[in-house]
Order: sequence, then C-alpha cells, then structure tokens
Amino acid sequence: MSKRKRPDISSLKEGVLAGNRVMLSRAITLAESKLETDRNLAEKLMDELMPYTGKSFRLGVTGVPGVGKSTFITRFGKKLIEEGYKLAILAIDPSSPTTGGSILGDKTRMGDLATHPQVYIRPSATGGTLGGISATTRECSLICEAAGYDFIIIETVGVGQSEVGVRHMVDAFLLLLLPGSGDELQGIKKGIMEMADIIVVNKSDGVNATQARETRQAYSRALKLFPPKPHNFPTKVLTCSSLSGQGTGKIWKELSDFWRNTLDSGYMKQERSRQRVLWAKSHIKELMEYYFYGHPRVKEELPGLLLQVEDGKLSSLSAARKLIDMFFNTSIHG
Amino acid sequence: MSKRKRPDISSLKEGVLAGNRVMLSRAITLAESKLETDRNLAEKLMDELMPYTGKSFRLGVTGVPGVGKSTFITRFGKKLIEEGYKLAILAIDPSSPTTGGSILGDKTRMGDLATHPQVYIRPSATGGTLGGISATTRECSLICEAAGYDFIIIETVGVGQSEVGVRHMVDAFLLLLLPGSGDELQGIKKGIMEMADIIVVNKSDGVNATQARETRQAYSRALKLFPPKPHNFPTKVLTCSSLSGQGTGKIWKELSDFWRNTLDSGYMKQERSRQRVLWAKSHIKELMEYYFYGHPRVKEELPGLLLQVEDGKLSSLSAARKLIDMFFNTSIHG
Repeated sequence: MSKRKRPDISSLKEGVLAGNRVMLSRAITLAESKLETDRNLAEKLMDELMPYTGKSFRLGVTGVPGVGKSTFITRFGKKLIEEGYKLAILAIDPSSPTTGGSILGDKTRMGDLATHPQVYIRPSATGGTLGGISATTRECSLICEAAGYDFIIIETVGVGQSEVGVRHMVDAFLLLLLPGSGDELQGIKKGIMEMADIIVVNKSDGVNATQARETRQAYSRALKLFPPKPHNFPTKVLTCSSLSGQGTGKIWKELSDFWRNTLDSGYMKQERSRQRVLWAKSHIKELMEYYFYGHPRVKEELPGLLLQVEDGKLSSLSAARKLIDMFFNTSIHG
Repeated sequence: MSKRKRPDISSLKEGVLAGNRVMLSRAITLAESKLETDRNLAEKLMDELMPYTGKSFRLGVTGVPGVGKSTFITRFGKKLIEEGYKLAILAIDPSSPTTGGSILGDKTRMGDLATHPQVYIRPSATGGTLGGISATTRECSLICEAAGYDFIIIETVGVGQSEVGVRHMVDAFLLLLLPGSGDELQGIKKGIMEMADIIVVNKSDGVNATQARETRQAYSRALKLFPPKPHNFPTKVLTCSSLSGQGTGKIWKELSDFWRNTLDSGYMKQERSRQRVLWAKSHIKELMEYYFYGHPRVKEELPGLLLQVEDGKLSSLSAARKLIDMFFNTSIHG
C-alpha cells in the first residue's frame, strides 16, 4: 500500500459493503500489509466490518498436491452458484512467496469460474511476520463475508501446518483423497483425517471408479475407530468426479445438512465464539513476538547470545532472561 | 521453597557436583519452584552447573498407559546399572497435579531399583506457569547430569502433547508398543511413530510371543514408508519381555550403537545445540506470557474484552491490540 494514496477507511467500508470488487481487493491488500500504519488502519476496518460478518458458511478444503483441489473447487463452486450462493475462494499457496504471483495461476486453473460475477478468487499472501499466513487469511475471509459472499472456501495445501490454522477459521473441513492408495501412501497425517468433517475421494471416474469405491469403504471403516466429533455429525466418505461432476450433488447435500444441523444445535455459534477467542490469543502472541524480535537492543544482542547458547556457554534460561530484561528496560513505549 | 531457609547457590552447586542426593533434590525443587525469587536463583544455579552437563545420554520413553513403561524402565535400568551407568529417571506424571504426590507411586512401581545407590528417581512437577512441564523437566535432567548421572531416562505418558516437548530434550526417543494391535487401536499418533528412534514391542512373553513378532514385522514394514531420519540411523523394531528380561540386551546394544554413531558423526553435538536454541526461544515465549498475563491491568481487562470477542462485539485483532497497548503503557519495569 505504501506507494498508493492511503485508503480512507469509511470509503473502503462503504465499497466493501456495496460489494465493489475493486474496494474489496484494496481492503484485502490493506489487511495483508505488514506496515504498522496499515495494520492500524486494517484493525479499524475490521472493527467496522465485524457487524456485517458471520452469515456465511466457511469451508476448508485440503488434500495433498495432485489430488485435484482446484478442479474440485471449480466443479463444486459451479454447484454452489447454481444454488444461488455468492462464492469467495481464498487459496493459501506457499509456493508463491509474494502476493499476486499466483492470482493468474489460480484464475487460469479455475477457468470460467474466475470471471463469474458471483465469484471472487484471491490467493493469500504468505510469510507475514505480523499476523502470519493464517491470521491474514482469516481477516480476508471476514472481509469477503462483509462484501456479501455467503460461501467461503479456503484452500490449503495439505502438507504442512497450515491445516491446523485453517481448521480454526472454518465451520467445516473437507479432505480430498485419491482413489486406491493407503493412508501412508497419500502422505495424509492422521491428525488431518481427525480434523475432517467430510472426506471426498476425488477422480472417481473411468478406470478409477471401482478403486474409488474401495477407498471410500476403507476410509469409512477406519473412521469408525475415531472418537465422535464434538458436533456429533458423523464424518461421511463420498466419491466425486471433478471431471464429470458426478457426486457434487451428494457432497452439497451433506454439507448443507451439516450447516443446518450445526446451526440448529447451536454448535456453530459456540464454535465460532471459541475460534474468535483463540484468534485473539494468537494475535496477542504474534504482537508480542513482533515487538520483541523487532526491538533494537534485542535485535542487536540476540545473535550473539544465541551463539553462546549454541556453544553451551550460556544456559537457555539465562539467555532468555537477559533478552527479556533488555526488552522491558528499554520498552518501545517508554 | 518458601517455608524453608533460602538455599545458598554455592552450597547447592557443591552438593550437586559431589552427588549429594539431598542437595540434588533441593536443587530440583528450586528449579521447579514458581516463585519469581526462586526462579532467579534457579537461573543462577543452572548457569553454574552448565559446564558440568552434556556427558550423559538422554533417552525419552513413551507409550500409551498400560504398555508397561515403569516395568520396562525398571528392567532396562537394571541392565544399565550392570553396564556401570549411574541412572536418573524423570517421570512426567500428569495424573498427579502436585509435586511429590507420585514419588511414592514411582518408587513403589519401580521396586528395588528405587533404593539402588546408582539410581535417582524423580517425578516432574506438572502445570508450571513459568517454564511449563517440559522446561522444568529439562532443567531437572541437566541438574542430574551435573550430579554425575550419565544415563537419563525421561518417561512421558504417550497420550498428549508432552512427547513433542520431551523429543526436544533427549538424544533418542524410544516408543513402547503392545503386541498384536494396530496403529489405531494402540492410540499412537503417527507423529509419535515418526519421532521414535527405536521401537520396542513390550510384553513379548508367554502367549504373546508370536503376536509380538508379528507386530514387530508389521511395524518394520510400516517404517519403510517413512522418510529417513536426519541422523541416518535406521529405526529398528525390537521385542522385549520386561517380565523375564528377554530382549533388554539387544535394546541396550541398539541404543549404545545409536549413541556411538551419533556421537562420532557429530550429529548429537549439532542436535543438542539446536535444542538449546529452541529452548531459549521457548523460554522467551513463556516469560513474555508470564509477564503479559500476570500484568495487573491485563488481568483486570482481559475477561471483559474476551467476552466481547466471544459475543462478536469486538474483533479478535482489536482486543489483542487493546490488551497489548495496556501492557506496554504500564509495563512492569516502568
């Protein structure tokens, strides 16, 4: 944002609420900014938009690279549009370290969905110091909600830690699998299976169809060994062909059942409250680290002290204490 | 420590270095104390003892409740004593919320090992605000090293997050399994299997012997799907009867091979340096949280602000910012 005119919060707010795409993009860019002045503005904007959020359904989609997340989201997205939803797709793409690099990539991968008036696609900036990947993505999803997008899909890569962060910002988590391979071979961590509210065996077409059914059965059996979820909605395994569209209707039915069920039972409200408190604590931690590691004295002394720790000349505890004392004795605000 | 006379650092240091058990226990109690004055003394003591640490081998032992960790450690401990080692056993026991509560328990469970002159057994205090479970255990193990214990066993419970913390304070991690049950049934998370440097199928006696061999083979096959460890020492699966002692010789041979191998390759030195830096950063985080959540204004305002966040009246980001500002504007040192 530094090279552009500083955005005006009230015009951003109005633009977002009116569903203006240019203003929506500018609001997201502001939320992704690492400049402290932008962060302050972003916080004000988030407060202004808060009352207009919360009406959407938030779905996380994960799976190993090659499982076909983009084609699945494209196909399933079309179903959602038919059902009348306005859809925002946020993709966490760690292969692209800078914002924008993969916008074109996503838009190309998602074909005609990208230009549909009911759809907004945005890759997430990665590697933010203040806020981190997940926190920024969460803010983006809230801004999209305020802009009237009532179905939010957050795509993760399925190989790292990002799933855990995403789990705490969505209402349901969908795990995509390939037909005919075991847990180990798919590189899926057991923890990710436990997080899933719905599992979909993708590429269930042509020669894969039989294998896909077997995979579905194997995973259905494996899920019986897991304890029930707090929402008590049983995790189903379904098959799908993103190529032909077979299965998307069933997936939509399952998800809309989940949505209605967790809304009626009060679980969704309760879970979202829990998530908000969790994110507040996560922001506190991030802000503390931001100020600590950005503190001039700490920055100057940290490498030398850690080297002494590495060499065993200073205990880990003493190094920590020394740095903490430096930080508080010459704290940023006084 | 508050009710006793304040310990004198230099006499504690001398006592620990002389291998005096009473002084060793008092030093550990000091390290476990949550009082800030004690923490300062403990840090000084740790610095004094640092040059006398680092010569031991540190082994983590984990497994689900009922797998027989105590009987295994008792049996394997006897082997270590025969080999001439002085053995310290630190047990993390989350079922006992107060220090001391389970000392008798451990000593009873470990039979005549508990009274052996070459053995020191100590349960770890749990639930420390400052330092946490793992950090305190790490300090205790260093104090034991300074006291001349050259083999340290840290027992974890195998069901929670404590394994990850323990993994970063030991040289090798041993996972105990029961014969004849699959991964899911044993409740072992895949991540814990990945952490293991050696896997032992316990209770391999009587009617279980055949099943134990089958379990060993199944896990050996499963391990082939995992990527190689950074130390390049292959993870073996062995069987053991803690009842008869069968298998302990092989386990000792495997562990001493591991020890020699990682010592010669320089891996152990490098890994311990990495662990020390990790702990320094972890201590920084803990100290920051300690001061933040203990700050009078923060303590007063936190519940109300989090309630607003829960109710969706305030964004997570703004609540965090407000609390951070309160903290720094009236910081503890000024």
